Amino acid sequence: MSLKAVATLPVTKINAAGVQDTNDALAIEEPLEIRLQFGAETNRKVQNISVTMRTPGNDAELAAGFLFTEGIVSKKEDISDVEHCFIACAENKENVIQVSLNNEAAPNLMNAERNFYTTSSCGVCGKGSINAIRTVNQVQKRDDQNTVTTDVLYQLPDLLRNHQTVFADTGGLHASALFTTAGELLIVREDVGRHNALDKLIGAALNKKMLPLSEYVLLLSGRASFELVQKAVMAGITIIAAVGAPSSLAVQLAHEFDITLVGFLRDKRFNIYTAAHRILTPDYETSH
Amino acid sequence: MSLKAVATLPVTKINAAGVQDTNDALAIEEPLEIRLQFGAETNRKVQNISVTMRTPGNDAELAAGFLFTEGIVSKKEDISDVEHCFIACAENKENVIQVSLNNEAAPNLMNAERNFYTTSSCGVCGKGSINAIRTVNQVQKRDDQNTVTTDVLYQLPDLLRNHQTVFADTGGLHASALFTTAGELLIVREDVGRHNALDKLIGAALNKKMLPLSEYVLLLSGRASFELVQKAVMAGITIIAAVGAPSSLAVQLAHEFDITLVGFLRDKRFNIYTAAHRILTPDYETSH
Repeated sequence: MSLKAVATLPVTKINAAGVQDTNDALAIEEPLEIRLQFGAETNRKVQNISVTMRTPGNDAELAAGFLFTEGIVSKKEDISDVEHCFIACAENKENVIQVSLNNEAAPNLMNAERNFYTTSSCGVCGKGSINAIRTVNQVQKRDDQNTVTTDVLYQLPDLLRNHQTVFADTGGLHASALFTTAGELLIVREDVGRHNALDKLIGAALNKKMLPLSEYVLLLSGRASFELVQKAVMAGITIIAAVGAPSSLAVQLAHEFDITLVGFLRDKRFNIYTAAHRILTPDYETSH
Repeated sequence: MSLKAVATLPVTKINAAGVQDTNDALAIEEPLEIRLQFGAETNRKVQNISVTMRTPGNDAELAAGFLFTEGIVSKKEDISDVEHCFIACAENKENVIQVSLNNEAAPNLMNAERNFYTTSSCGVCGKGSINAIRTVNQVQKRDDQNTVTTDVLYQLPDLLRNHQTVFADTGGLHASALFTTAGELLIVREDVGRHNALDKLIGAALNKKMLPLSEYVLLLSGRASFELVQKAVMAGITIIAAVGAPSSLAVQLAHEFDITLVGFLRDKRFNIYTAAHRILTPDYETSH
């Protein structure tokens, strides 16, 4: 099924030159309900896991990536099938997706208790208690040798922009992109919700059996919040570069897991907040 | 209790001139657990309603605004007290807030169900849970005479920017601002979460008994999503102007409630997506 990410709607444009009635491309935002089917053959269950406000497209990746970054499913092999809900759902079928696990797979539904509804701006909100927001308690720090040069980092926003076709149309989408440390773009995903864009990317990487993503660089088109760093931790990311600002808790979590967090990456400059050892800088005269 | 909105953290700044170790101001992001205490004097209950990732500050407004925009509480008079949870919560006390209702107030917990734990196996059908996203089903269209001129709209982003002190420091905060139609700034609230910034604003307006907000203009510093338009509908807003792009569903909801939705308001230009009759434009020669 092909899902549209962009809608064309009538708009009245106003500026000093006057008034113009025309059409404008907008990012589509629609709810997606993620269901999980699991259990032994004789005792299959279906559970609603979450409703997220997302831009249609790559829904199967979004569902798989979400289940993975929430810690509900731990490996691709557990998933037997992901499909939009055609039979059980007469209405809204493109907005319901069901992930089916193998008979023997045991989802960690302790982690599912927190996820009923997420909006396009917050993937953590709606959770029932403060303790429920951490999914990373079982994750170990990586023992990696990953590094990236300043020059490669400088190029990443332009490389992303060249691939962000929907954003160019609408101005309304966040993107997550996975690069090699040589600056080759491997995966890019877009969504009205930045957490969805990252879940789509991680779901795509899960499908390609690329996890853990410890040898790559993750680029975020906007700000770096706690939840985005947490999802990156779940996927084994070691270097995160954000075009926008990080939050205090994003920095704290990156520090806890020794992840390199770069912010304000634009116009050939950036800030390193944590784990600066993975950034290879030219032999500047430093001020320290 | 005074809560800090900004943290100063060490940062390594990299640009063509070299490497500099310094300090940087970042927006604080912390979880806030919102609890509701309600019921008759002999049978008081406390229920966890939601956890939201927010920037500390104006937490009481955030909690009250959230309960109002979610449709759980319908009027200020129902709320007897809002306080950080000092006694029951030995830890995290500044991140837990409790809203106490009067004995006779009846919260609409049907609307709270989307924020609760869901531990049972599926019994909720897809249509049901996707429908639970909507809080506006009881809201009527406004019969208002509200209008704003193009010239006033042009000024709003600059007026907001002059008041967005934390944003200037950190680059990490969203803002919501309430203006008169003459361009006077009445309330501005900031947060790492744009939905929180709007809930804080609506909570402040609730405290001031300003609701419904049908005679004002709401300015959003970023994009306009479904959830922001929905919160605005709950508060009776009739004109929403966003600096960023709207989503398709934001436009659809604004159209349904005959709310004027303006997007891309910057550099003396903007787009009107719905209900253009509330925007008074100069007597241009129009192209239509």
